[in-house]
This record gives sequence, structure tokens and C-alpha cells, in this order.
Amino acid sequence: MTAPALDLTADVLTLTRALVDVPSVSGTEEPLADLVEAALRALGGLEVVRIGNNVLARTDLGRDTRVVLAGHLDTVPIADNVPSRLETVDGEERLYGCGTSDMKAGDALMLRVAGLLGTPDAAPARDLTFVFYDNEEVEAVKNGLGQVARELRGWLYGDLAILLEPTDGDVEGGCQGTMRVVLTVPGERAHSARSWLGRNAIHGASSILAVLDAYEAREVEIDGLQFREGLNAVRIEGGVAGNVVPDECRVTVNFRFAPDRDEDAAEAHVRAVFADALAAGANLEVTDMSGGALPGLAEPAAADFVAAVGRPARAKLGWTDVARFAAFGIPAVNYGPGDPNQAHQRGEHVRVDRLQPAEDALVAYLTAPTSTGETA
Amino acid sequence: MTAPALDLTADVLTLTRALVDVPSVSGTEEPLADLVEAALRALGGLEVVRIGNNVLARTDLGRDTRVVLAGHLDTVPIADNVPSRLETVDGEERLYGCGTSDMKAGDALMLRVAGLLGTPDAAPARDLTFVFYDNEEVEAVKNGLGQVARELRGWLYGDLAILLEPTDGDVEGGCQGTMRVVLTVPGERAHSARSWLGRNAIHGASSILAVLDAYEAREVEIDGLQFREGLNAVRIEGGVAGNVVPDECRVTVNFRFAPDRDEDAAEAHVRAVFADALAAGANLEVTDMSGGALPGLAEPAAADFVAAVGRPARAKLGWTDVARFAAFGIPAVNYGPGDPNQAHQRGEHVRVDRLQPAEDALVAYLTAPTSTGETA
Repeated sequence: MTAPALDLTADVLTLTRALVDVPSVSGTEEPLADLVEAALRALGGLEVVRIGNNVLARTDLGRDTRVVLAGHLDTVPIADNVPSRLETVDGEERLYGCGTSDMKAGDALMLRVAGLLGTPDAAPARDLTFVFYDNEEVEAVKNGLGQVARELRGWLYGDLAILLEPTDGDVEGGCQGTMRVVLTVPGERAHSARSWLGRNAIHGASSILAVLDAYEAREVEIDGLQFREGLNAVRIEGGVAGNVVPDECRVTVNFRFAPDRDEDAAEAHVRAVFADALAAGANLEVTDMSGGALPGLAEPAAADFVAAVGRPARAKLGWTDVARFAAFGIPAVNYGPGDPNQAHQRGEHVRVDRLQPAEDALVAYLTAPTSTGETA
Repeated sequence: MTAPALDLTADVLTLTRALVDVPSVSGTEEPLADLVEAALRALGGLEVVRIGNNVLARTDLGRDTRVVLAGHLDTVPIADNVPSRLETVDGEERLYGCGTSDMKAGDALMLRVAGLLGTPDAAPARDLTFVFYDNEEVEAVKNGLGQVARELRGWLYGDLAILLEPTDGDVEGGCQGTMRVVLTVPGERAHSARSWLGRNAIHGASSILAVLDAYEAREVEIDGLQFREGLNAVRIEGGVAGNVVPDECRVTVNFRFAPDRDEDAAEAHVRAVFADALAAGANLEVTDMSGGALPGLAEPAAADFVAAVGRPARAKLGWTDVARFAAFGIPAVNYGPGDPNQAHQRGEHVRVDRLQPAEDALVAYLTAPTSTGETA
């Protein structure tokens, strides 16, 4: 059973449905990547490259600015929610299905833009790069955008990167960083009937939990956006047997930090927060670190985009692949028609009335004269 | 390969070796129980009964008092330490092997007493009951002494029960109770990037750990023995995923309580200790409860025994099967030649010079005239 070719002249709802109806759970993106590649090649106005199941395409019109549009093709596992179906709930027309919100509606928007502006006779105001990538929903090491950054880094450069992740049609600038540390509290084993011969590591973790419980997370404004941090225990484990004073307790803490802290500053902050516990013998190991991304909305290409969308921008609190662009100094924003709260839900859906306006704003931005003469 | 019959006229060291060299890990006691049963029956002066792999024997001489001697036949799993071997370390002669200390040296003592006082022409000053039982080292529900208590309860009655568990030759009176509770702290899940939308259950456990860390355990003197309680977290677990604010944290707490508290009082105490956490929404479930045993050393039969041993008695802090006798109102003590610190060790051993004195004290007690005319 081969899925029909994608018709990039169809409206964005039709295109979203076509994408949803080709399953592409992480690791199985090949059939969908094939369809996307073929459709982009057929346009005739794009240079198209493929590595693995990542499909890249770009114009080369010598424009002053270049905008990169990026979206992942994969979804979380299907939960009885493919093929897509249209339903009206509380007077609201919705398209249900795995990936509708996260993020095939965004991919459909990218394909619509390609269909309109990627033909030989089109005349976008900015050069365009399209990056469709795989394996976003699984371990970071498999992430297709990471592969592109390593192997075809030049393809990611631009004056602005727009990641079509679900944002409910708002512009979300930058993203917060995330790090995980494991705090290990030592103790000494003893039989619990003679507990004074040992030292209880779980009791020893008391001060760590007290610090977490009392922690006041910082809020900070960056480029006019409000970022709000968070420091949370996400796991705790300790215990040997029901009659043994335990000699180890491990607390895993996740720190979400605003992008005005870099990775070193984030670690220094966490070490300072737990200074007493560390002085008392606890050990801290950083197990996971992904730096954040400054919103960069002061950059002209980004400011133009926010103006074109016409709604106030807000900070992105979760970590997203925009950070991969930010690592190259490229302003990057999240902007997609999906509802982030719908991501990964069995009842995942996208509001139909969000699709066309999102396309219109994006196309308006890409075709309007640029506000400055900055060069790529 | 059949093990040779047990020779109850051999000395206690030889008998200990013979018992150690017949493996009897919990659940596999049958061959050893067969040997014990045959040896007891051969004496001719004992009524012998067997249920499962529990072997019971008793005199019926119409004496004023009856003493019950009890020992389990099983051991923890063998760790390359069978058969037994004699070794001299630092000038100390030791018998090494699985169960030497816990508690085949004690079983050997019982068999020696049976050999001396269980023949038709013997004349002990007190009637004697011997209880060899299985499955002490595993789940309480399998415990052979429990089976005897349910099915042949009359066999356990006496004026004093002596459990030959390792005590280094001291008399340890009574035992502390033990209970386990699971405290469950609720929370609300949220993505850790927007943690303020949830409520972190691990942070919520902070007050429980603070209470445990600050807890001052009670010490109390009962019948001249010093008991020391303890309240310890023995397990803690919480966490959903590395990016989720957890909605549950479970803390398992073990309370070791002196035998002047009964089970209800112990639970009431623990509920009072955690009253604040319970008021804040935590749940407390009692998952395990074994009451303690009062030492009962003021009873004449017990006092005579302590005098015969000639060393100060001390409190038993760990829970042992003496509590099964105490539940019937029978004074019960722990007394054995093994070293409790050797139990369950790969290098488990018993000091050879502890064996004969322990036998001598026990035989002296059982053959000396009784101090009072109390009746059974």
C-alpha cells in the first residue's frame, strides 16, 4: 500500500490530513520522508538534499536575508488515533489524530510555503531553507536536526529560524535550558533494630528536600519576554531492605534555567543551592545538560516576524530544538498552529480555524519587503 | 549419599559439625529433620511428634516446671561455606560454616541436652520440651514455629522458653516489636518546564524526612533491661520521568519499639509523630506489624535461668521468635553460644571455647533443684 503523492497546492487542512495519515513514529519516518522529498523536488525551484530521513531544501535567490523553517516528521507512538478524523466539539471544528498538533500541522504549513514560494517563478522577499527531520521524539542522540548540524551545518545558517512546534499560533522566543543532577547522600548500613550503629542516608537527604521545598524560582525578563525557572526533584530512591538502615539515597533534580545563564552558570547555581548538603558529604553529578536559547527578538528578521504575526511574543519555557540554532548564534523562535497541551495525548487534535491564519501570517512575513538591509 | 545418624553422645563441637555438614537452607530441611527425629526417637525417654519438617519432643515426668527449648533447623543460603572447617585465627579456635552461629551450635546444644536428659533413666529437675522448626530465615508466613503455634499449640506451653539463637552466651530477655508503615505523599503532575502548574510530591516529603532526622528515640528500662527504640526510613521512592513533577512519593518507615508498647500503642505513636504530614494530606498504611515480648525475667523459672548462666541479662533489640511464646504469656529468652554478628556472613563461624560452657550452664539449670514450687 503506497500513500498517494503529496499535493502541495491543496489547502493546509488537506495537507495536514495527508501527513497524519502516513504513520511516522520515530524510527519509521522513511515513507513520509520519501513523499516530502518527492514533492519538494517536483517544485523545481529548490535545491534538495537528503541525509537519512532528513529532507532539506532551499532557495538561492541572493536575497538579503534567509529564513530557516524547521519541523520534525516523527510522532510519538500511535494510540488508536490514525487515520485522522474531523469532528466538531462544542462548536469547534477539530482534526484529531496522532501528530496533528505535534507537529504535522506545522509540517503542512512548511509544505504550503514551499508550494507557494519554492517554484521557479516565485519571488519571496527572503531566501528560504526547509528542514524536515526525524527522531525528535526520542533520545537526543538520534535527533535528525542534530545530525544535520553535524554533517550539513551550513544548511542551518540564516537570519532567523522558525521551528513549527505547536505554540497555539503565538511566537515563543528562545527556550530555557535544562540540566539534571543526581545528588547522592551517603550513610552507613546497620540493622534497623540497632539503628544507632549506622547512619541513615534517607534521613540525610532531609536537608536537600527542605532546600527544594523552600526554593524560590527566579523570574527574569529577557528581550521583553518573561522567563520563569524551576528546580524540581524528579526522582528519589533509597533503601536496601525492610530491616536495614540504608547507606545511600539518590535525589535526581531537574533545573530549568532561563537563557541568560549558560551551562556553567546553571551548574554553579545548583551547586550553590545545595552547598550545605555538599559540604556535609553529598555528591553531585551532572547527568544531563542542554543549554537554553536567547530569544534574539531584537534582531531585525525576528522583529519583522513578530510584527507579521501581530500578537505579543512570549518566552518558551520547555527546551526545544531552537537551542540547536541558538548554539550557532541564529535567532530562533517557535511558531506553530498546534496546541502544545495536545502534544502526546491520545485525543491529540488541532483546531481547524488555527491553520489558515497561521499560514497567512507566515506567507505575509516571507513575501513582504524586509525592514532593513541586513545581510545573511 | 545419606548422612550418618546423629550421635547424641558426641561432644557439642562434634555435634555442631555434624549438623552444619547436612545442608538445610530454608525449604530443604527434610534430610536434617529426618536425622534429628530419628536421634530423638532412639533416646526412648521422649514423646516425639513431627509436622512437616518440625520435630517436637518432650518429657512427661510430672515436674513442677516445664522448660521449652527451641531452635530453627534452617540456614540462609550457603555461600561456599559448607562443609564446616576448624581454623585457629589470632589464637582463637573457630568452627567456620553456614549456620555455625545461626544456629546449629544452638541446635547441637539442644540435642546434647536431649541426649543427657531425654533417656528413660534420666532425672531432670524440670520437664523438657524440644522444638526444632523450619523456615525461620524466610517469610514469616512459612515459619515452622508459627505452624506449631497454630496446629500444636499445647506443645509450646511452659514456664520458660529458651530460644537458642546466637547471643554470645548472654541471656537476652524479651524482644522489641517491629512495624512498618508506608507514608504516601500526594502531589500533582506537571511538566517540569512549567513546574508551578503541579505540586511536587517529593518536595512534599521534606517534612517527613525532617521529622525522622530530628527524632529522638526513647530508651526504657523493663525488668532491669535497657531497651532502645528506633524510627527509620528504610525505603523512599518517587518519580515519574526526568521531565515530570512527580505526583507521589512513598516513604517506608520501620519502627522498632520496646515491649512496653503493644501494637496499638506503637501505631498510635507513629501516627502522632507524623501528625503534621498526615494533616497535610499524606496517607499512612501499616504494612507489617509484629509485637514485642516482655522479658518476664521476674518469673521464677526465668530468674533461675539467669542465675545459672551467671552473667547479667540484657534486652533483645531485634525481633525474634521469642515473641511467639510471649504471645501466649510465656516468659521467653534468647540464649545461644553463637555470635549474633556472625549470622548471615560468608565467613560465619562460632568460637569453639563458647560451646561447652553454654552446655554446662544449660544442663546445670535443668538439673538443679528449682527455687520455688510454682506449678506448670
